[in-house]
Amino acid sequence: MRTFADPLRRALAVAADRVAVVDGDAQPTGNQLTGNQLSYAELAGRCARLVGGLRSLGLESGDRVALLMANGHRYVEAYLALPAAGFVIVPLNARLADAELEYICTDAGVRALITDRVPGVLDALVEHVVRVPDAYDDLVAAADTASPDGVVAGHGPGAEPGPDTLAGLFYTGGTTGPAKGVMLTHRNLVANMWNALTSCDLRADDRYLVMAPMFHAAGTVAVLGCVALGATQVTVPAFDPGLVLDTIERERITTTLAVPTMLVALCEEQARAPRDVSSLRLLTHGASPVAVETLRRFRTLFPDTALVHLYGATELAPLATAFADEHLHLDGPRARSCGQGVIGCRIEVVDPEGVPLPIGEVGEVAVRGDNVMAGYWAKPEQTDAVLSDGWYRSGDLGRLDREGYLFLVDRAKDMIVTGGENVYSSEVEQALATHPQVLECAVFGIPDEQWGEAVAASVVLRPGLDQPVTVAALQAHCREHIAGFKVPKRIDVTTAPLPKSAAGKILKRELREPFWEGRTERVGGA
Amino acid sequence: MRTFADPLRRALAVAADRVAVVDGDAQPTGNQLTGNQLSYAELAGRCARLVGGLRSLGLESGDRVALLMANGHRYVEAYLALPAAGFVIVPLNARLADAELEYICTDAGVRALITDRVPGVLDALVEHVVRVPDAYDDLVAAADTASPDGVVAGHGPGAEPGPDTLAGLFYTGGTTGPAKGVMLTHRNLVANMWNALTSCDLRADDRYLVMAPMFHAAGTVAVLGCVALGATQVTVPAFDPGLVLDTIERERITTTLAVPTMLVALCEEQARAPRDVSSLRLLTHGASPVAVETLRRFRTLFPDTALVHLYGATELAPLATAFADEHLHLDGPRARSCGQGVIGCRIEVVDPEGVPLPIGEVGEVAVRGDNVMAGYWAKPEQTDAVLSDGWYRSGDLGRLDREGYLFLVDRAKDMIVTGGENVYSSEVEQALATHPQVLECAVFGIPDEQWGEAVAASVVLRPGLDQPVTVAALQAHCREHIAGFKVPKRIDVTTAPLPKSAAGKILKRELREPFWEGRTERVGGA
Repeated sequence: MRTFADPLRRALAVAADRVAVVDGDAQPTGNQLTGNQLSYAELAGRCARLVGGLRSLGLESGDRVALLMANGHRYVEAYLALPAAGFVIVPLNARLADAELEYICTDAGVRALITDRVPGVLDALVEHVVRVPDAYDDLVAAADTASPDGVVAGHGPGAEPGPDTLAGLFYTGGTTGPAKGVMLTHRNLVANMWNALTSCDLRADDRYLVMAPMFHAAGTVAVLGCVALGATQVTVPAFDPGLVLDTIERERITTTLAVPTMLVALCEEQARAPRDVSSLRLLTHGASPVAVETLRRFRTLFPDTALVHLYGATELAPLATAFADEHLHLDGPRARSCGQGVIGCRIEVVDPEGVPLPIGEVGEVAVRGDNVMAGYWAKPEQTDAVLSDGWYRSGDLGRLDREGYLFLVDRAKDMIVTGGENVYSSEVEQALATHPQVLECAVFGIPDEQWGEAVAASVVLRPGLDQPVTVAALQAHCREHIAGFKVPKRIDVTTAPLPKSAAGKILKRELREPFWEGRTERVGGA
Repeated sequence: MRTFADPLRRALAVAADRVAVVDGDAQPTGNQLTGNQLSYAELAGRCARLVGGLRSLGLESGDRVALLMANGHRYVEAYLALPAAGFVIVPLNARLADAELEYICTDAGVRALITDRVPGVLDALVEHVVRVPDAYDDLVAAADTASPDGVVAGHGPGAEPGPDTLAGLFYTGGTTGPAKGVMLTHRNLVANMWNALTSCDLRADDRYLVMAPMFHAAGTVAVLGCVALGATQVTVPAFDPGLVLDTIERERITTTLAVPTMLVALCEEQARAPRDVSSLRLLTHGASPVAVETLRRFRTLFPDTALVHLYGATELAPLATAFADEHLHLDGPRARSCGQGVIGCRIEVVDPEGVPLPIGEVGEVAVRGDNVMAGYWAKPEQTDAVLSDGWYRSGDLGRLDREGYLFLVDRAKDMIVTGGENVYSSEVEQALATHPQVLECAVFGIPDEQWGEAVAASVVLRPGLDQPVTVAALQAHCREHIAGFKVPKRIDVTTAPLPKSAAGKILKRELREPFWEGRTERVGGA
């Protein structure tokens, strides 16, 4: 297994007639699933013809091809086929503004775009636009009838991809700063495939629900692993808790990945209108910190489902740690761990000079493995800031225990320094989340004359409460769980959801910015 | 995970205090286990000091070090530490004659030998002999106190091993021809680690019994995987069915690997004196063809144990295919399959020119993957005969079904051509083995004036039978299962066990040779 072609090749060898993709291309409001299926033989055939079609447009190996569309079988096809044939995919975040999309396409030198959007600013920017579904399907249909394994047997003109060939540019920076193109090679993503196979307990008879957006690493974390096994992937075009629960019930989904905001929404919906979710043997979750209360609630509402906590970063393709059977540990000392380094990753906690710290001390999390990105596209300085000697400096603060379990305490930049004390926002969020009326919350630092920074929180309460909790009561609740200096001095209770990235991460920057306007915000932490 | 150092490094990170090795250094007759345990921290410390001790003798990276000793914690130490430090291990088959051992040590240019034998011919041949246990333990004790992760943190003088550094020379040829040194690199053996982890369902809480000899690939197939997980390995110095069953019961063994002759012996012993083997959740088996009857008997006697059939070769480091949950398929059409290609291997069935054959047709099994050996040591012609374009030609005959399940029909050289018909010896052996009185059997070709070759069999009956079956009755029994031309024309019933290699493979050569003396035996097949 050296390139993207290999997992598909194995699927053709062991599962040609089995269902590769069920495309849940349904209207979220209707909660209907059309049952659009492709076998692996059909998927590989479409992959081969897609590559043939793109070559007929004049595209060559190494060309960047942007993807801007909802989850579905065409996303799976493009994700698998383009890198296998030597193209470089550039998945675009569907929530970005036009100016941001333009920036990325220019930065990456995108030559072609596959999109389900109506014509817009990008059409003028890229040489070829392939519109989904019609033009895309026409391109596939018109291409020379390649043999089903054409995409994996021959790569046409240009250099055949190798382990160190670039497979994709994955832009990050949804929550802070300008977007950077994370360069992931075939080696990086194949290394992650092995890590996913050994850490997420994927199986050949799995029916994996792809509900996180596929332009995000969380949405594609298991694609190569599922394909290598010949397992089935079921896609939904966008996350909707009702649609997802209906899909789990109808499609007998066995495993999936959720980001924490999805977990919260799934719990709410399952409590409101329970579905039969007994088929779901495993839920992996990650991409941002999660409240233990949320996991406990999930355990109650989904009693047949094991939990595996994942931690990683786009720069790590993306997995770094995994906590198997986390649901058995939610009442013990490791309840807030994100697990041990996956088999292919070394994890260390280091001081600002990169020197490993003793067990138990808090420092920056550093990761090494074949999954560590090649760098940021055309950004050598930013690359040098995070990569050295094969180690990736994550910007996350954490500590390790004696058995290598990692406890994240905060993003370095989200740590609050108040009166000389370090306050980890995640710890305060955990305290707030234990209040039964709190649906979601975010904690961040605001300027304070006396303390430098003060702890502040935005809180969303559950809907339909007869007697909403007061700010004073929330502060008193926090005081029962954490030290006084950590208790938020300011709490804003809102009814609107907190601002989130397309991947479901809460955008603390947007909450924090109004307080810091005209001031110089502290940069970095620890 | 690029070299041998990486699994041990991970074990130190996640399982420093857990039991790495339980050394069952007991007398087979006494059935006692002394309970000699090493934690991973202790194991890594001894590995580091072993390397320091060997360096103090003047050994350098790239030097070949032969291992000639029984399974035990010292074998595990040497197997892990020497390649990690850049040495090349040369495991020696303990059953070989002196002349064969001399040949190998000369061929490999062995500079040091670690052995539990009394001084003999090899002492004059190699520069340094480290005798187990005393001199070995003295060397380890006298070495500079290295940090526990010394073996994995620094490699001392010489080039640091990389993925393509040679890790070991593994001599094969126990059953035919002169021994060849299979060159396996770190990449090869790490690739096998991933294949073992994903195909053998190894788990972090496993207690793996190493009962196949560690000088054979079957004895070390799971070492790197167990170490990477931080699992426990329990060794027995030599296979004895009573000792093994006692060990399974006492040590609560969860998984192991057996060769078919061990399976037969374990079934006999468990039927004679049942032990509590309920802890054994998984038994992998392979290394030579197995009678389905044996597997069915095992399933009855070990009802809590899942079966995984493995197929491979030393040249493949060694895994190529795996049949998960084989015990559920012993009465179906796949009963005689050895499973699907492991995730990291491509399997094809090819004609004599190397062209892939259609599904269902019998041809030579070819394998490709990062696990394919670098070649035979100092034997370019033999290397070219089996390696081309990254493919390894196995010399085994088989066919694939539509889902990539491989059915081996025979070794190419064991196929019998009688009257122009191909007879696969394994098929005849399967027929004989279904007779309740047959304990073990081997089928081979002998010269025949009329037919060129005739089918012959050596059969061992179960002990203590009141009315042993006659040859005519055995032939009649075969005729119920296979075509007349496949039924052995000659059957020798013996009470002595069939001759076997140290790995438990029946040595058909020894059975066949007396019949062919003075004649030119057909070479190759198909």
